[in-house]
Amino acid sequence: MPIKDIFFDIDDTLFPSSEFAELARRNAVRAMIEMGLGETQEKLHSMLIKIIAKKGSNYHNHFNDLCAALKLKKSSRYVAAAIAAYHNTKTSILPYPEIPRMLLKLKEDGYGIYVATNGDAIKQWDKLIRLGIEHYFEDVFVSEEMGEEKSPSFFRKVLKQIKAKPEECIMIGDREASDIVPAKRVGIITIRVRRGKHAKGKSTALFDVNNLEKLPLIIKKIK
Amino acid sequence: MPIKDIFFDIDDTLFPSSEFAELARRNAVRAMIEMGLGETQEKLHSMLIKIIAKKGSNYHNHFNDLCAALKLKKSSRYVAAAIAAYHNTKTSILPYPEIPRMLLKLKEDGYGIYVATNGDAIKQWDKLIRLGIEHYFEDVFVSEEMGEEKSPSFFRKVLKQIKAKPEECIMIGDREASDIVPAKRVGIITIRVRRGKHAKGKSTALFDVNNLEKLPLIIKKIK
Repeated sequence: MPIKDIFFDIDDTLFPSSEFAELARRNAVRAMIEMGLGETQEKLHSMLIKIIAKKGSNYHNHFNDLCAALKLKKSSRYVAAAIAAYHNTKTSILPYPEIPRMLLKLKEDGYGIYVATNGDAIKQWDKLIRLGIEHYFEDVFVSEEMGEEKSPSFFRKVLKQIKAKPEECIMIGDREASDIVPAKRVGIITIRVRRGKHAKGKSTALFDVNNLEKLPLIIKKIK
Repeated sequence: MPIKDIFFDIDDTLFPSSEFAELARRNAVRAMIEMGLGETQEKLHSMLIKIIAKKGSNYHNHFNDLCAALKLKKSSRYVAAAIAAYHNTKTSILPYPEIPRMLLKLKEDGYGIYVATNGDAIKQWDKLIRLGIEHYFEDVFVSEEMGEEKSPSFFRKVLKQIKAKPEECIMIGDREASDIVPAKRVGIITIRVRRGKHAKGKSTALFDVNNLEKLPLIIKKIK
């Protein structure tokens, strides 16, 4: 049966999410020092990492907590500097270099392309917009709006909504547990991209690739 | 007595705040339409203005409310597009063209320069950082941290903190009620910049100017 629809994960599949997150933290710490904070980059970075590990990455007051831990009195200048540098980095994200031309080729080849991602809907849309690829996708399925994270039932809902059969679809992602296993369970063809912090480890995907440059060719082969 | 210290308001004094706010709203509305929303710019803009008037400008869900009023089902794409365009504009603010060189001249002339502003401390610091002028100021006095908006008592606290006499100081701002009247009340010399949405109306300042290009000369005249 010919392939009709292709689903993409976002983070570490379409852009180097982990790299930009790390760069954003480092730039935030550097901006605090540039604003006059007399601490080392290493110390501030390691304190920040601990706060993020404790409070989660969707917590909004990492830098306030960091300043509180340092017992700073007039901290708004440092918090503002850190947030500005952090946001500047997060809003300057770029796709992996092959992505825009590869997506355009898939559109030219007549496939329906979709996003299937875990996370906050507005944040995930923001990434697509910042990456400049928001218009390529027929639709975007985000766990927050679907009522559950990527799972067999998530993918069943997606197939029902776009009226597709699993064997006509491909799911592409970097994570075995959330991208490959649940899609495979419902009969969707799977491709694992080995990059980012989840690059290593066992894969049960039909194909493993290091990047998505040859995706249009691979899909033709599946046909 | 020679002038020693100079206090500046931020919004519509150091940069065209009202203009950028209006541009940010227009860009947000245009981004929603580019994302596929089938409404006119005029309609969306006027709905947005009403929501801001009702909820205040520090409210965080203007675009969610706008989408709710339009009864949109999958609204995250429009909210994300609007927020990204809005933030892109708000983070691209520029000072009035004479400001950076004028501030540098005042530093060369040996004055202490300060900010005295109403608002949220982190937001006001963010503006100084985005404007690229954050390092010029000896200190920044924001109402949130001072415990009250600009008033005679606000300025008395500032004078005490920097150990200055009122007649050695100048306050520069665009608003009669919050910049000129309270500073004058404690004996600080006042200069009113007539620009932005509060450009018109009665002034009781010692000097009225249209821009701050000649400020270093005016201050020497006061000496």
